[in-house]
Amino acid sequence: MLLCENPLARLRGFQKLTSTENALQTWLNTLQIKTNKETTVPLPEALNRILTEDLIATENLPRFDKSAVDGYAVKAKDTLGASQFKPALLQLTTSDTVNTAEAKQVWTGNAIPKGADAVVMLENTQKRNEQIEVWTQLAPSENVSKTGEDIKKGEVAVKAGTRLNPYHLGLLAALGNSKVKVADKPKIAIIATGNELAEIGSKPAENQIYESNKIILSAMCRELGAEPLDMGIAKDNITEITEKLKKALLKADAAITTGGTSVGGLDLVPDAVNNIGKPGVIVHGVAMRPAMPTALAAVDGKALIILSGNPVAAVIGFEVFARPLICKMLGMPNTEQRPTVKAALTRKVATALGRKTFVRVKVIQKNGEYYAEPVSARGSGAISTMTKANGFVIVPENREGITENEQVTVHLFGDLEQAN
Amino acid sequence: MLLCENPLARLRGFQKLTSTENALQTWLNTLQIKTNKETTVPLPEALNRILTEDLIATENLPRFDKSAVDGYAVKAKDTLGASQFKPALLQLTTSDTVNTAEAKQVWTGNAIPKGADAVVMLENTQKRNEQIEVWTQLAPSENVSKTGEDIKKGEVAVKAGTRLNPYHLGLLAALGNSKVKVADKPKIAIIATGNELAEIGSKPAENQIYESNKIILSAMCRELGAEPLDMGIAKDNITEITEKLKKALLKADAAITTGGTSVGGLDLVPDAVNNIGKPGVIVHGVAMRPAMPTALAAVDGKALIILSGNPVAAVIGFEVFARPLICKMLGMPNTEQRPTVKAALTRKVATALGRKTFVRVKVIQKNGEYYAEPVSARGSGAISTMTKANGFVIVPENREGITENEQVTVHLFGDLEQAN
Repeated sequence: MLLCENPLARLRGFQKLTSTENALQTWLNTLQIKTNKETTVPLPEALNRILTEDLIATENLPRFDKSAVDGYAVKAKDTLGASQFKPALLQLTTSDTVNTAEAKQVWTGNAIPKGADAVVMLENTQKRNEQIEVWTQLAPSENVSKTGEDIKKGEVAVKAGTRLNPYHLGLLAALGNSKVKVADKPKIAIIATGNELAEIGSKPAENQIYESNKIILSAMCRELGAEPLDMGIAKDNITEITEKLKKALLKADAAITTGGTSVGGLDLVPDAVNNIGKPGVIVHGVAMRPAMPTALAAVDGKALIILSGNPVAAVIGFEVFARPLICKMLGMPNTEQRPTVKAALTRKVATALGRKTFVRVKVIQKNGEYYAEPVSARGSGAISTMTKANGFVIVPENREGITENEQVTVHLFGDLEQAN
Repeated sequence: MLLCENPLARLRGFQKLTSTENALQTWLNTLQIKTNKETTVPLPEALNRILTEDLIATENLPRFDKSAVDGYAVKAKDTLGASQFKPALLQLTTSDTVNTAEAKQVWTGNAIPKGADAVVMLENTQKRNEQIEVWTQLAPSENVSKTGEDIKKGEVAVKAGTRLNPYHLGLLAALGNSKVKVADKPKIAIIATGNELAEIGSKPAENQIYESNKIILSAMCRELGAEPLDMGIAKDNITEITEKLKKALLKADAAITTGGTSVGGLDLVPDAVNNIGKPGVIVHGVAMRPAMPTALAAVDGKALIILSGNPVAAVIGFEVFARPLICKMLGMPNTEQRPTVKAALTRKVATALGRKTFVRVKVIQKNGEYYAEPVSARGSGAISTMTKANGFVIVPENREGITENEQVTVHLFGDLEQAN
């Protein structure tokens, strides 16, 4: 395992911090994650699920030559030289076949009748009893959607590993699929640890706070298409944590804990993880800010992510480690990226050399330009900074900050218009 | 109703097209939409739902002064002039109160003990039996998260009309909320019309195609937080359409139809809508491309959107009219915008003067710059253009196209990394 020497990592136990990239890679390599099992669901339920195999078109789309406009199906050669001053005169027919000097009315989407090879638009014609004047010359195939023009039989319509959006579902429907194979939702157990935590809905003691990490991380799991399992709160007690972890790994495909990972107190959760199986903790201490005390572990092939108890650190730790894990479990070829915007930083931000720093910002739009305003916060405990912000800027390890007006790339996690 | 004279609107029945802005405004004004009813849900189920009332903090967050770091709670004045060369020596205590010249160990998140007003970080201390050396001078409140620093009691924590993301849920949890009031999901009935349509799962006749609009529009409804009702396919028959529309408006808060709106054939759906109630069709024909033959209607205060049968036109019509409708029904202050990126167009695109044109593009990233590649398509029938693209560029009515390399704003509807 490669370690990144870090002059600012002065906390005991963290003299050496692993870079985020090395931490992630070392951990994923140890895990050797297999894609989750697949399940067949009706098409409407496949929204935002991940396709597990290339979907091949079993027929052409369109299935037949069809009209792209409202008008008359004709033989293109019958319109040779036609203009408003010298219209071509064609006989209307209602038969299945269009013969020489004939035209048949068609609406958008109708099959092109036998014998016809082009469609003249309504507005380029004039009806005269049982005949039409055609005012324009047509090329063969003009205004015709040709068989297979959209997708050809045998082509890959949607690739394996794609998150299905409404348009993918539409394409699958157009190809006649009423069901589709998607990845099972990975089950992620979530455990909060800490004597100071009270469940929402309960009455906290005077020195307790409401637990909020489980609900945040559960929602982040759901957004990615995983199924969170709420395993409750464990006291700062190695036996209780160990029991919860064992239960979690029986029920779930992976587990996330919050709290009990800092060097400050005992390393309760890392110690508990090392108790329950091999290889245990793989990385502890990452060259990032916040979320430095994050630990990554594996037990019997199942992934564990040991996050800080501070909500913002937990969120960033999830972003950097749980997101790629879940995407891999879902069989996605790459980690799904958040949308980004480029914006000018409204004031300078100082960051620590040797740490990849995640700066929360609020992006605002002014006269068509984007500006990113750093959201100040002391420490990483203030969850309101995540609701005030709508994105984060990643400052690399080799920078000591960002200057005012510098163009930065913002990874958006909130609505651009509605940061509040 | 303001009409926009359009020289290119040559189709019969559409000599005058309404601008998208006027069409939307006229229609919404007629409708006078009331926000949907509200419902109380457990916090974990509130993800992506819309908050119906300002959520006021009923207590301070944090609830008490707490330590932002691992270390020792002290009186700041006891560290005056302390340095590594001249440490302050403090007596460790385990009592509830910190007296002069005393220090008490605290971990991140712990309440600050009575008498203490600052916390010295572990790494700035050295333990000597029952005493600690403090190597740094502290200011009052240093390393303390003050009561109410995150949110103050009485402040608005989350505004009404906000779509709740994981971090909003976390903030609500931290404030002790286990339930929250959110807007009911508007029920949107969706009817497809057309003799050429076969339901997926059925066996289509030779000249039929699989119906795909209902599944696309249903998924788009779901993404916005509405509940789609699949009303099936109506034949091109005014009685059948009228019956389905009546049923739809009994069951749903609004209805969307596809097909039967073009000037080409009969205006079957607009005629059916006008049959069932007042005021009926308000706008028919919009200065946009695709989706020009879109009609907007109202019957007894319920909204109807009559979309083209072409999938891409239906999608764009939904985007421009159903999205603002649903956001309004949900009580959002503004129509929710898609994320945008600025990109250089890779080749010129011709558009029609007098029409707001929605150009599908595939945004790709190269050397940190974004490029938007127009996705070619004849007509608006090819749904594969929506899966190949990941965004659209809106070309205003007063432009005849966009030149190569021009910087455009792309509204993203698909994954940046995964356009295929």
